[in-house]
Amino acid sequence: MTAVNIKEKFNLFSENWTPKIIGELNGQQVKLAKFKDEFVWHSHEEEDELFMIFRGTLILEFRDRIETLKEGDMLIVPRGVEHFPRTENGEEVWVLLFEPKATKHTGEVEHEKTVRDQEWI
Amino acid sequence: MTAVNIKEKFNLFSENWTPKIIGELNGQQVKLAKFKDEFVWHSHEEEDELFMIFRGTLILEFRDRIETLKEGDMLIVPRGVEHFPRTENGEEVWVLLFEPKATKHTGEVEHEKTVRDQEWI
Repeated sequence: MTAVNIKEKFNLFSENWTPKIIGELNGQQVKLAKFKDEFVWHSHEEEDELFMIFRGTLILEFRDRIETLKEGDMLIVPRGVEHFPRTENGEEVWVLLFEPKATKHTGEVEHEKTVRDQEWI
Repeated sequence: MTAVNIKEKFNLFSENWTPKIIGELNGQQVKLAKFKDEFVWHSHEEEDELFMIFRGTLILEFRDRIETLKEGDMLIVPRGVEHFPRTENGEEVWVLLFEPKATKHTGEVEHEKTVRDQEWI
């Protein structure tokens, strides 16, 4: 129960698409991730997921439209909604995620990018 | 399910100590509040609460110590832990809160500052 500086936590890792846990409350976890280029189309059947942008521009594609999130923006993807996160021009985008503890970041999809045991930083 | 700019949402209200809801997921709500001067000592028996600072310096007093949170910092107060939020020198501090939907901001304490029906912005 001490103050955590979010940007300092971002500076502790460099891998892309590997969420790191920085907090836990009410069965939910706060995670940081660095997105770059393309992820995979996926959805989470039981879990809503919050994206909050700390650096750069995140493109979130849905089956019916595209949302562009800039620094200081947030968006909640409801459970069951397929989404495809990506960045443009090789930009690394820093994202805070808020989601249930059990959430796998690739949702129902098994993929080479799936990280099974997410770690605390 | 559209992007929300957090700073723009902060600019939509001016009252102090009246959390405004900007998102909901997994039974939790994302709220914004402007703290100024002193709140009240309280705890939440069943709910952990996250504070994330967007402007200014928040002092969080606990019974055994004091934490100082600056812009970009976050802290999770576990359920049952008494805390007393305040600011110094009349500064208005912008705070994002993450907590279960049912949470009353004064916890178990009934106080003139208790806002019963928190509104969406």
